[in-house]
Amino acid sequence: MVLGIDPGFGRLGFAVLTSVRGTITIITYGCIETSAKSLHGDRLAKIAREVKALVKRYKPSVVAVERLFFSKNVKTALQVAEARGVILLTLAEANITPLEFSPQQVKLAATGDARADKEQVQKMLKLMFKLKEPPKPDDAADAIAVALCGITHQTKP
Amino acid sequence: MVLGIDPGFGRLGFAVLTSVRGTITIITYGCIETSAKSLHGDRLAKIAREVKALVKRYKPSVVAVERLFFSKNVKTALQVAEARGVILLTLAEANITPLEFSPQQVKLAATGDARADKEQVQKMLKLMFKLKEPPKPDDAADAIAVALCGITHQTKP
Repeated sequence: MVLGIDPGFGRLGFAVLTSVRGTITIITYGCIETSAKSLHGDRLAKIAREVKALVKRYKPSVVAVERLFFSKNVKTALQVAEARGVILLTLAEANITPLEFSPQQVKLAATGDARADKEQVQKMLKLMFKLKEPPKPDDAADAIAVALCGITHQTKP
Repeated sequence: MVLGIDPGFGRLGFAVLTSVRGTITIITYGCIETSAKSLHGDRLAKIAREVKALVKRYKPSVVAVERLFFSKNVKTALQVAEARGVILLTLAEANITPLEFSPQQVKLAATGDARADKEQVQKMLKLMFKLKEPPKPDDAADAIAVALCGITHQTKP
């Protein structure tokens, strides 16, 4: 089991994939959302709680987390970094050392193109996993691509 | 008891102050340091553990945390934001809603000048608390100033 996480403050994407004899299967994917009406600390606490629950439920042997790229929106970037801190803490407390991948590595793993846009990533994942629709929202699709990075990294010679 | 925190990843400043009938006293101040040789997640776990211990030991009625200003060093800013996320999570888990102050508010509370530099802050704290030396390092001095903000805010009519 590989858990992929696309860190976020308002919405965090996650995906659980398995790889059995070269065949990769999506077990689940989705988002953890926190309400802008909640207290800042309570939103971080919800993220910690739900990531903990994912780890407990799926017992991943590998957890892959996307690194932060620097966005033009400073406030958003700092909030995502706060969420990333909470995610990394939660994993450390579960004795998990995550693999970290840059957005470029994630796009490359999903599409073969490090500069692919979100739509290309979603289209490729749809093809790759024979889905009826591209996985949505963006954050969940991204988490699938992050988990793919984890699997690729794991199966390298 | 007011706990002031200057968030940091490699070094986080803290200070505990009390205000009794208008007289403010420093109970303790210092730094939580994490080693660059440790795993990223373990450094965040140490921050969580030590902040939890401070809260348990001093049972502050108010916790004041400095907001992040945007630094030129993007990597540093994102790491400090990760640490801030861990601090805010730890406080939320202890049912504490922190007061947050901008660096300008902190400098203003300590020196009367929102644009004061670190040295001015340290000099003013030395005078204010009749210390033999300016409080050091910077991060600890800053935490005293953050705690001062918490006290000022608390005692407003």
